[in-house]
Amino acid sequence: MSSSFGLVFRVSTWGESHGPGVGVVVDGCPSCIALSAEDVQRELDRRRPGQSDIVTPRKEEDRVEILSGVLEGRTLGTPIAMLVRNKDHRSSAYDEMQHIYRPSHADYCYDAKYGLRAWAGGGRASARETIGRVAAGAVARAVVRTLCPQVEVVAWVQQVHHICCPVPPEEVSAQAVESNIVRTADAASAEAMAAAIREARGRGDSLGGVIGCTVRNCPVGLGDPVFDKLEATLGHAMLSIPACKGFEVGSGFSAPSFTGISHNDPFCMEGTRVRTRTNHSGGIQGGISNGEDILMRLAFKPTATLMVEQETVNDQGQSTTLRGKGRHDACVLPRAVPIVEAMAWITLCDHLLRQRTVSAARS
Amino acid sequence: MSSSFGLVFRVSTWGESHGPGVGVVVDGCPSCIALSAEDVQRELDRRRPGQSDIVTPRKEEDRVEILSGVLEGRTLGTPIAMLVRNKDHRSSAYDEMQHIYRPSHADYCYDAKYGLRAWAGGGRASARETIGRVAAGAVARAVVRTLCPQVEVVAWVQQVHHICCPVPPEEVSAQAVESNIVRTADAASAEAMAAAIREARGRGDSLGGVIGCTVRNCPVGLGDPVFDKLEATLGHAMLSIPACKGFEVGSGFSAPSFTGISHNDPFCMEGTRVRTRTNHSGGIQGGISNGEDILMRLAFKPTATLMVEQETVNDQGQSTTLRGKGRHDACVLPRAVPIVEAMAWITLCDHLLRQRTVSAARS
Amino acid sequence: MSSSFGLVFRVSTWGESHGPGVGVVVDGCPSCIALSAEDVQRELDRRRPGQSDIVTPRKEEDRVEILSGVLEGRTLGTPIAMLVRNKDHRSSAYDEMQHIYRPSHADYCYDAKYGLRAWAGGGRASARETIGRVAAGAVARAVVRTLCPQVEVVAWVQQVHHICCPVPPEEVSAQAVESNIVRTADAASAEAMAAAIREARGRGDSLGGVIGCTVRNCPVGLGDPVFDKLEATLGHAMLSIPACKGFEVGSGFSAPSFTGISHNDPFCMEGTRVRTRTNHSGGIQGGISNGEDILMRLAFKPTATLMVEQETVNDQGQSTTLRGKGRHDACVLPRAVPIVEAMAWITLCDHLLRQRTVSAARS
Amino acid sequence: MSSSFGLVFRVSTWGESHGPGVGVVVDGCPSCIALSAEDVQRELDRRRPGQSDIVTPRKEEDRVEILSGVLEGRTLGTPIAMLVRNKDHRSSAYDEMQHIYRPSHADYCYDAKYGLRAWAGGGRASARETIGRVAAGAVARAVVRTLCPQVEVVAWVQQVHHICCPVPPEEVSAQAVESNIVRTADAASAEAMAAAIREARGRGDSLGGVIGCTVRNCPVGLGDPVFDKLEATLGHAMLSIPACKGFEVGSGFSAPSFTGISHNDPFCMEGTRVRTRTNHSGGIQGGISNGEDILMRLAFKPTATLMVEQETVNDQGQSTTLRGKGRHDACVLPRAVPIVEAMAWITLCDHLLRQRTVSAARS
Repeated sequence: MSSSFGLVFRVSTWGESHGPGVGVVVDGCPSCIALSAEDVQRELDRRRPGQSDIVTPRKEEDRVEILSGVLEGRTLGTPIAMLVRNKDHRSSAYDEMQHIYRPSHADYCYDAKYGLRAWAGGGRASARETIGRVAAGAVARAVVRTLCPQVEVVAWVQQVHHICCPVPPEEVSAQAVESNIVRTADAASAEAMAAAIREARGRGDSLGGVIGCTVRNCPVGLGDPVFDKLEATLGHAMLSIPACKGFEVGSGFSAPSFTGISHNDPFCMEGTRVRTRTNHSGGIQGGISNGEDILMRLAFKPTATLMVEQETVNDQGQSTTLRGKGRHDACVLPRAVPIVEAMAWITLCDHLLRQRTVSAARS
Repeated sequence: MSSSFGLVFRVSTWGESHGPGVGVVVDGCPSCIALSAEDVQRELDRRRPGQSDIVTPRKEEDRVEILSGVLEGRTLGTPIAMLVRNKDHRSSAYDEMQHIYRPSHADYCYDAKYGLRAWAGGGRASARETIGRVAAGAVARAVVRTLCPQVEVVAWVQQVHHICCPVPPEEVSAQAVESNIVRTADAASAEAMAAAIREARGRGDSLGGVIGCTVRNCPVGLGDPVFDKLEATLGHAMLSIPACKGFEVGSGFSAPSFTGISHNDPFCMEGTRVRTRTNHSGGIQGGISNGEDILMRLAFKPTATLMVEQETVNDQGQSTTLRGKGRHDACVLPRAVPIVEAMAWITLCDHLLRQRTVSAARS
Repeated sequence: MSSSFGLVFRVSTWGESHGPGVGVVVDGCPSCIALSAEDVQRELDRRRPGQSDIVTPRKEEDRVEILSGVLEGRTLGTPIAMLVRNKDHRSSAYDEMQHIYRPSHADYCYDAKYGLRAWAGGGRASARETIGRVAAGAVARAVVRTLCPQVEVVAWVQQVHHICCPVPPEEVSAQAVESNIVRTADAASAEAMAAAIREARGRGDSLGGVIGCTVRNCPVGLGDPVFDKLEATLGHAMLSIPACKGFEVGSGFSAPSFTGISHNDPFCMEGTRVRTRTNHSGGIQGGISNGEDILMRLAFKPTATLMVEQETVNDQGQSTTLRGKGRHDACVLPRAVPIVEAMAWITLCDHLLRQRTVSAARS
Repeated sequence: MSSSFGLVFRVSTWGESHGPGVGVVVDGCPSCIALSAEDVQRELDRRRPGQSDIVTPRKEEDRVEILSGVLEGRTLGTPIAMLVRNKDHRSSAYDEMQHIYRPSHADYCYDAKYGLRAWAGGGRASARETIGRVAAGAVARAVVRTLCPQVEVVAWVQQVHHICCPVPPEEVSAQAVESNIVRTADAASAEAMAAAIREARGRGDSLGGVIGCTVRNCPVGLGDPVFDKLEATLGHAMLSIPACKGFEVGSGFSAPSFTGISHNDPFCMEGTRVRTRTNHSGGIQGGISNGEDILMRLAFKPTATLMVEQETVNDQGQSTTLRGKGRHDACVLPRAVPIVEAMAWITLCDHLLRQRTVSAARS
């Protein structure tokens, strides 16, 4: 139960960072969707380590193998299992972690919850778990784009530490985001952010930031209106990404600075289409998409693995210190962008399929 | 599927605002928990309209009837159904709404999603839906407090428009919160907030704000480490509350202003107990509770119902205007406090019961 | 979790026999389906006590109230809550049952499972729980018949003790079944069965039997091919009916008497439609409906409540005896027929809605 | 959704017979359970082809690889993914099947449901899917036996065509079952059954039969009392096994031949333990285990693949004929025994873990 997401389009990831591999099973995917291993690999390559000098230099090729559910380039309607083998990169760098709890990592909580843990490199709490999400996101994207070809999901780094990208969400293009190593929306911000990341890494420190994500041309009517409001399930999806500490939609935490008169989005007609003049709602009203751009923002904390000595305790309840080893991201945001997009596609796909059952009597 | 929450402790609400009633079924509640209708009524009274001059003056008595699952003051382990009858307060005030979409309400989206809607007073999108949540929250509270008597959940109004309450989360007491009509943490803030709400209402306007919520003495080990991280399910729960636009845990959206060195929470021993020196993690690491206070903040938008004329369209695609009628909250936050607490109890209860299956081989 | 059935079309019953009432919430019902309280009441009247001299003479009117989810005769797409009040018929007849376990009833197991039980009249294990099923079945029927008007579900009493009704399944008509008090398929069988039931009742004894159920004009393609095969979910549904001890589909327990050559159903064309020459498969192949009649048979044990003295024990572990009191069915089958049909409609409805998500890319 | 089973202990299989492999993910397994690949392999070896001369002579080694969720011989509490590679045994034997529907197979229904199918060798409908079930069953067994070491599950072939094994259920031993190639309970029956299978195979025909399954020393209190009655979920599990056409528990289809007086199971004390004098209930009352042996019987149809020419149609709607090719089981029952046991373990394990949440307030 802990490792599944979605009701109809159901994604289940599995795998520890230093076990044989990581992967995902996607159940509930409609049949007859065009899908190839390349479609999945393309997204995995975007989250892979070693893409640039500001992310971890670890060499993980992360080749995906589709084990089931696809025949001759089309989905069968049966579960799609995908596997990425782990390289055997376990080193003595991890030996120390067997008994010492890394601050602000999951080590202590895993031990408390399970009575044991896969201590080498994070185990299930490793960022490698997100490989399964990105692979499933590629499937979800294929489904959504087949059913609604106009839908677009774009995420980008809006902020790293104190450096903010000034491009407004509606002007961010996927192309611009992919054209710089930070995955922010313009070149100048990218340069400043990259410099800040390099500087932090240089002193063994790390940085956090904010990722923006927008969904364009979302069909009207997605989202279940009570517990599974579209923003609630998107929030669930995003807050489950490692290091995410906050989620907001539309006006978000700036909503209180408005009053009702300035915050409400007046309806107007654009031809035969109902539009809103402003979009403080962020494309969702009453938990249901209204066809305007969905706008989300996610806060990420600075990476917890640091190359400096930190105070901590061991599993015998003794005080000690720990200094991070190995090769880690000093800022996870560039590689988190495809993960955010994957979670958005997965959530949209589930709601899109659910909606086919709600509207059954009208089509 | 749209109206249920929780995996083991499963809450399903039902009801439209102007139908016969609203209610909830709680399935998966353990047996032999002490529970009375008074326990539930006490919480419902906290969310009831008409409690003070700054909330809607509507008279809704909202008496709960427990229809099943409880015998002689103890839960039977079977589904607990609870019912609150609606008063017949449908008036001509709502007639206009049958064909005109209220800005920033759910009207248009419901029509688009379902092909029809219960147009009188919001139907399923009405705040009356939250009656079921508060009733279920009272059950969840009884379960959690039976299993872990030390656990405490306190929510309070931290901010109304530009007015912030300065009391730090660890000093907020439930008593202080209940002693003022705004449900903020000190009297001075309460006075200023109440004045702002009255002023906004006076000109037909409305205000939003921020609600803080803390869980104290949470057992270590709650939360599932991938999709159902404790913060992800809490976020899901909170973002499903009407008018909530943002959710953060621990350092939240201020996390990017730290660097890793200042953000990490060093572990230390307090006797035999593992503690952290700071709590930027907000009591959750790797998706699992670590025993420190859980700290959450929720952003609420200003109430969408305004007593001024607004631009909108009708269901025939024609431009028109609408002015709110009836008696509405100019600020939902005072009455949202018990709803936030209810959703916290429900989420905790589900995780607490789940954890009994995870640790099965160790007890 | 214990009291819900279905994935997309989700039915949750609640209620003890001697509490305030029993009921059901149906979530996931499509919007815009014509539905009235009369549609539901009609089915409830078929399962009501007191319909004839061979069933329990208890007077339970069982008037249903639809509390939500329906407006002006059409479903809203939101949860449909339905309530039937219990009459206050608790009598001293039940006092003895507080501490003595009735043989072949649920009393002992409830105590063992929950640590307590609603001892008056069966509580949750009472046949009154099936009121919620029948009400939900009426909703499911409305959905299926709206989407596929040709689908027909007919159940009938095939056997009471040693008396078998000779009418072959394909010739059984709903009309014939409703025209006799046993709900068997012809008048002669009805007379013999009724006589047997009266005779058994006369000596304080009870009878079991077999109910047949057929689905005609089922769309091809329903059923999920692995764990949720159509026969597996139908079996789950039927075996959850109180007193049901066995379920078979198609050739069922007579399958072993065939060899493969005589058992296989050859395919043939009927115009453009694929048919099978025989139907040993019972309308389901590989877990998926093939368009032929679905044929099921359910075994029911004799009623456990007997008007004779029986050996048993009490909750103190002492040997004692018990003689049934009150007014009970000496044979549950006539009143079980509408319950069987309800469970068939519910299962079909869920699969029909699921299939809309599977085939999403093809329509 | 189609490929998962269980609520807390959740089993999800995936894989087509002629794709890269088949496998399973087990989520919700408690931590700290002793488990090795050998524990799983032992069960897989029991379902493997080529074990004797009466089953298919195909050589499938079926080596399992545990990809996650286990470290140093203990479960981590995280998802356990297991993979078995398919051999590349696709041959021209299957070419014909691309367009012709095999009678009483899933081919036609898959095409109708999905719009395409993995036509080589059955795809998802192949018996290879059950590899995942057997692997998951080995995990479930380890969990149940850790929590309740006395629990025993034994299945055996009770009947092949007209040959019945006379050993009463309570006398069947696992050892006896494993000591003959038919997996029946005594040597004489085994010989007669094997001869019948060889004879049928010799003329291109096939046989069905009945498998009995008993659970001994089941804890009292397992099973949810309404839709998820223990017999209903066991029935669901068993009826989802390919070729299973019927399921009964306790007296089953012979229940109608009793009257209530002879069918009821009188309670009596055995020391401090509540027992029943007879066991027509089959160890389950009110959907909940009562501690007596659980007794089930499953009917299996004769294998649908026949080495004789049969009438059928192709996917163009034309009449044609088909003769089976390749190497198939003329009787599936010997290899179905470990599958039946696996589904019993999985169902018991899920209920055992569920029960820990029901009784939470009492321990």
